[in-house]
Amino acid sequence: MKEARISAHDFEELVRATIPLAREMSFSVREIVYGEATVRLEYDNTQLRAGGTLNGPTMMTLADTALYAAVLSCIGREPLAVTSNLSIHFLKRPAPRPLVARAKILRLGKRLAVGTVEIQSEGEEDLVAHASGTYALPGAR
Amino acid sequence: MKEARISAHDFEELVRATIPLAREMSFSVREIVYGEATVRLEYDNTQLRAGGTLNGPTMMTLADTALYAAVLSCIGREPLAVTSNLSIHFLKRPAPRPLVARAKILRLGKRLAVGTVEIQSEGEEDLVAHASGTYALPGAR
Amino acid sequence: MKEARISAHDFEELVRATIPLAREMSFSVREIVYGEATVRLEYDNTQLRAGGTLNGPTMMTLADTALYAAVLSCIGREPLAVTSNLSIHFLKRPAPRPLVARAKILRLGKRLAVGTVEIQSEGEEDLVAHASGTYALPGAR
Amino acid sequence: MKEARISAHDFEELVRATIPLAREMSFSVREIVYGEATVRLEYDNTQLRAGGTLNGPTMMTLADTALYAAVLSCIGREPLAVTSNLSIHFLKRPAPRPLVARAKILRLGKRLAVGTVEIQSEGEEDLVAHASGTYALPGAR
Repeated sequence: MKEARISAHDFEELVRATIPLAREMSFSVREIVYGEATVRLEYDNTQLRAGGTLNGPTMMTLADTALYAAVLSCIGREPLAVTSNLSIHFLKRPAPRPLVARAKILRLGKRLAVGTVEIQSEGEEDLVAHASGTYALPGAR
Repeated sequence: MKEARISAHDFEELVRATIPLAREMSFSVREIVYGEATVRLEYDNTQLRAGGTLNGPTMMTLADTALYAAVLSCIGREPLAVTSNLSIHFLKRPAPRPLVARAKILRLGKRLAVGTVEIQSEGEEDLVAHASGTYALPGAR
Repeated sequence: MKEARISAHDFEELVRATIPLAREMSFSVREIVYGEATVRLEYDNTQLRAGGTLNGPTMMTLADTALYAAVLSCIGREPLAVTSNLSIHFLKRPAPRPLVARAKILRLGKRLAVGTVEIQSEGEEDLVAHASGTYALPGAR
Repeated sequence: MKEARISAHDFEELVRATIPLAREMSFSVREIVYGEATVRLEYDNTQLRAGGTLNGPTMMTLADTALYAAVLSCIGREPLAVTSNLSIHFLKRPAPRPLVARAKILRLGKRLAVGTVEIQSEGEEDLVAHASGTYALPGAR
């Protein structure tokens, strides 16, 4: 298992510094190795108001963040890597508890990175969402 | 042009009541007719902090909200219609200004509604994102 | 309307030369301008055997071919442009008749082109499928 | 591991009977259990002509067929289950050899089944494509 090119701490700091919604949503990196990242989204009262379920945009934001972590685990701290596309299937309404997203890079090219994300409610087996997406990588690499 | 089965006002109220993130993001319905909805996302300081550009999760949330409006324009106020899948292409980094999303239902079935969403920066021609997605409709219809 | 950088005739020839399935499926370019292409798929007995309806892979092949035509309308004859991703929604079972696909480039970058495709049965109003996709463009451009 | 509700033999027969392109593409089921199916696409001279690589439509057709097998492994022989949407990422140009697709159902609902497909060149480690998609299931179940 190769080592990640960004640490959990540095990724969390980057997210807080650059993604405004991250002030409303508490992300933490549970594990990061080269090509894979597990990101946890804390559950809080804000999201509780959504009729007892976590909504689609919350899961899309988590999927995008986890994929970003997996991309940076390969190329290092790079704020200019941007999502090119994301496709997500919602499988099950998540219970009102933390979500855990596991992202994995399937292909790392010079210009594009493609990966998948599986989201589960913490402590549960079933997937609540599955996403796949592409990040465009800065040309200078 | 058939009339929408939900008013702009009722949709905005539903969003504020059920989507917690809507407190952080100011959505307003610009136009709604049967099968089509235009939703505007106000630009504010929160999003300004994102390095001068609006990020992916913001556009995904807007796309999902606009598609929800277009779905409800066909079936009326129905909080149990949920996103089944969403696929989005990011085309251009949006300028720091309001975004306008135009959603259109391509197919309304008994159980599924499929539509597309085009997002532009207000007052600009180019698309900044294009999404397509499916909503699962409650069985009782 | 800028002129296409590949002619209908040259595109049809390229498809026949490089896509083996094109021997089984008869594609013709109905119209091609810069950034847009309309491609028709002839209906024949082979496809008739599919229980009286055209199947998903047929529509995916048509969508990919039409998007390829729209990409080449912008960059000229370039066999090395390849599909990076494609997302398709099937909206309606098509009748046993020719299909017409209209592809449009939404964004032409240096390295990626993104576009959409709408497919209809010839002579009918309703869409039978909607696709969006990305082509990776050769670096040498 | 629950048993599949359709046999490899019955699925192959269904595909040959209902998918015209299957006469041009030789599919065989390598393994099928409840919720999972592995489908192999024989490599032949027809596809060799494509400049020494297998093209996108070939992989899309294989992905759709493998997902169909996985769906029928859960619900039994059901020609009326149809693809609702499919999203595919092409990761690597496949070598001129057989392809193997592994499909897995992530969620089986009353009306929709969602799954993923991983495609590899036979005998190789890397993925050449990754797809996710939804099948609409007949109402009578």
